Amino acid sequence: MTVQELELGSETLLEGVMATIRQRIAGRVLTPGAKLPSIRAFANTMRVSKSTVVEAYERLVAEGVIRSKPGAGFFVAAPLAPLSLAEIGPRLDRAVDPLWVSRQALETGDSVLKPGCGWLPPSWMPETAIRRALKSASKLEASGLTDYGTPLGHRPLRQLLARRLGEHGVEASPDQIILTESGTQAIDLLCRFLIEPGDTVVVDDPCYFNFHALLRAHRAEVVSVPYTPSGPDLEKFAEVLATHRPRLYITNSGLHNPTSATLSPVVAHRLLKLAEQAGLTIVEDDIFADFEHTPAPRLAAFDGLERVVQIGSFSKTLSASIRCGFIAAPRGWIEGLVDLKIATTFGGPSLAAELVFAMLKDGSYRKHMEALRERLARSMNETAARLGEIGITPWIEPQAGMFLWCRLPDGIDAAEVAQKSLQQEIVLAPGNVFSHAGTANGFMRFNVSQCEDARLFKVLPAIMRQCVVGR
Amino acid sequence: MTVQELELGSETLLEGVMATIRQRIAGRVLTPGAKLPSIRAFANTMRVSKSTVVEAYERLVAEGVIRSKPGAGFFVAAPLAPLSLAEIGPRLDRAVDPLWVSRQALETGDSVLKPGCGWLPPSWMPETAIRRALKSASKLEASGLTDYGTPLGHRPLRQLLARRLGEHGVEASPDQIILTESGTQAIDLLCRFLIEPGDTVVVDDPCYFNFHALLRAHRAEVVSVPYTPSGPDLEKFAEVLATHRPRLYITNSGLHNPTSATLSPVVAHRLLKLAEQAGLTIVEDDIFADFEHTPAPRLAAFDGLERVVQIGSFSKTLSASIRCGFIAAPRGWIEGLVDLKIATTFGGPSLAAELVFAMLKDGSYRKHMEALRERLARSMNETAARLGEIGITPWIEPQAGMFLWCRLPDGIDAAEVAQKSLQQEIVLAPGNVFSHAGTANGFMRFNVSQCEDARLFKVLPAIMRQCVVGR
Repeated sequence: MTVQELELGSETLLEGVMATIRQRIAGRVLTPGAKLPSIRAFANTMRVSKSTVVEAYERLVAEGVIRSKPGAGFFVAAPLAPLSLAEIGPRLDRAVDPLWVSRQALETGDSVLKPGCGWLPPSWMPETAIRRALKSASKLEASGLTDYGTPLGHRPLRQLLARRLGEHGVEASPDQIILTESGTQAIDLLCRFLIEPGDTVVVDDPCYFNFHALLRAHRAEVVSVPYTPSGPDLEKFAEVLATHRPRLYITNSGLHNPTSATLSPVVAHRLLKLAEQAGLTIVEDDIFADFEHTPAPRLAAFDGLERVVQIGSFSKTLSASIRCGFIAAPRGWIEGLVDLKIATTFGGPSLAAELVFAMLKDGSYRKHMEALRERLARSMNETAARLGEIGITPWIEPQAGMFLWCRLPDGIDAAEVAQKSLQQEIVLAPGNVFSHAGTANGFMRFNVSQCEDARLFKVLPAIMRQCVVGR
Repeated sequence: MTVQELELGSETLLEGVMATIRQRIAGRVLTPGAKLPSIRAFANTMRVSKSTVVEAYERLVAEGVIRSKPGAGFFVAAPLAPLSLAEIGPRLDRAVDPLWVSRQALETGDSVLKPGCGWLPPSWMPETAIRRALKSASKLEASGLTDYGTPLGHRPLRQLLARRLGEHGVEASPDQIILTESGTQAIDLLCRFLIEPGDTVVVDDPCYFNFHALLRAHRAEVVSVPYTPSGPDLEKFAEVLATHRPRLYITNSGLHNPTSATLSPVVAHRLLKLAEQAGLTIVEDDIFADFEHTPAPRLAAFDGLERVVQIGSFSKTLSASIRCGFIAAPRGWIEGLVDLKIATTFGGPSLAAELVFAMLKDGSYRKHMEALRERLARSMNETAARLGEIGITPWIEPQAGMFLWCRLPDGIDAAEVAQKSLQQEIVLAPGNVFSHAGTANGFMRFNVSQCEDARLFKVLPAIMRQCVVGR
């Protein structure tokens, strides 16, 4: 028995080991058929004795969660294996993984504060325009109300998007634009088209946490490059290209999530030169484009949609309930992407595209965004000030957007703060869910539009005092 | 030089070889990084000389479509390689592959007849109910109009679906139901959850052609089992289980697509016993459920959602423009499926679920479906009669649904008929797009709701006369 076992009692540890395995299966870290770690290796990882791991594996076999293949080891059973799920809901005990913030933010009710979530409160969204769009949609001709979308999707919307992309310097014809069910589905479709299981993909560190979850679903190898206030660290980027020969780089260059940093022209130019030399493809997730006061450089604009593909959506600016995103891709990709889109979603957005088009086609959208940008700027200043008072300091002063990437006072564990805050109905976004390297545990992302409730600034200081590392 | 080359001229053949490779890349038969056949093997396949293949490969390298790795062979370049695409539209020259019918049916305009498509004409859909639902949606509270859906999706709709599934003998609690963007996306999500690249999946022969395309996107090995008027051929099914040890079986058991056959209780029972012995998981695609007059047995009902998962959607009965489907799954799967859904689509249907719920919650849906079933029954009889007059005979007399699976007169090549019909603006569904074994080229699927135009019965006989095999 290890010291731990003497302290905690082996039953507790045994349950801990079993829970860890169940969670890895539920979180798809271990997929059906995957081999479990050897008894010895897992005993070391968990810092328990081998006999504890043996017992845990045997009980999980009895439960049908894993299978034992004599001589070969232990394997995750087909997902028929009951993962003993109670009710879906925010689970206080869930470990902080890439999906942690998504789950908490999507699951929790309206009483909950969500400074950690990635979208605006309903009261900030263009409610009137949406209601108007729904009323006018009720007068569409029957085919628009009942038919599948065309393979590329709603042509007038694609024409409008082509013009809007042009305003950001991205030259795309409407036939280079494919409508998708969402921005996430756009990236998912591109991953299917561009990478195979085992391919290496570069992400920023920190980056949008769902990139980690999505790439895991594609069984990709992920490497990350530190992000600076003007873009990725180019020296490190070049090293990664040389060492790992990645096929793909996924980034937000408009307003970077979570840092709200913007790409500088020189970094954009050099990054593209590196990508060209290495034959690297780039997915530029530009869903925050319309939050900018003055557009920063876009990789897709510099590159002319040759090796850079751009994606966008309307979830952050119009509605996350009306599902519609898009891909602006090199001409040569369209045929293959459309086949893949039909195979995996068949229709694509149809009514949703009609609704988005109705909201974008007149001047009301520009007015809405102007008001939104001003409101966010005010909120950004206020939130930065209030966070400063409790010792939480912004990494940079963002030019625009909704996110403040902040450093916590020294020695505070962001994950622990997030866990404890959830018990008080506050959903936070701790740094390491954004960091592949796991180096951002002293950071936290705040969505300023979700930080207006005074309760946040009462509860946070108290919780932080309980979370000093090595306390 | 081969005889062919002397006849056709090597330039023509060279272009043919290059076109074949481009098409395999566009169709994802060859995915990025995939190794091309050896010069010798491909020369045999194409029945051309090795020098022609060498020349073709070299030109494609020059174009950047493929790459040469000295000593290792030729490989598909990253999809940056231009596939020289003109404009997306129905292409008369496209080979009849699993996506052929989808592409033609989704792409073509209203002037085109679509007996080959898989959905009802707009005039058959509940237009008034959709307009009413849109108007009432315009009065929803802001969060319903702007927020992402919850991880499982719209609870009242899930409760309603649980009751409706119960009416078909499928016992599922609302917490075992996950809303998805569509029926196709539901199956896609399940494939991601249940299979890994290289896993073997069983499908019916014939089966819904998009299963082939979807499984190709998942890099699965497909084996097929002949379908009989009462379900899959159990003897063959048992052989396949023994020989190929598949992980998954995907089928429509309610009304089978394309045959409109229904599962008999004894076949359902025996099939499940075989599945249990082999540890096989089954995805039961039940999107045609509401077209039945009297419900046939459901695998999910017999099984009690242990190894059978059921999916459904409203694209065929309410609207294909309002994207919403669902999964009814074993409890133990929900947690993992939800994580995967968030990773790959984030939100899931939100407004779409509100609209579907508005249309399902009152009695109007049942009235609509009653009328639809009667109209389809009449149309089924008329179409069968008119097809009979031109020598096209139904395989079975379906109890319900929209599909007639028909045998063409002896010696007629269905793919050729479909190709020629497209030139006359008629989209047909030739048998082999449904057949993994490629044994259905004498068959064709007719959607009776799309066969009311007399032009079809004038044009078809003329075309069939041109398409006698070996003419």
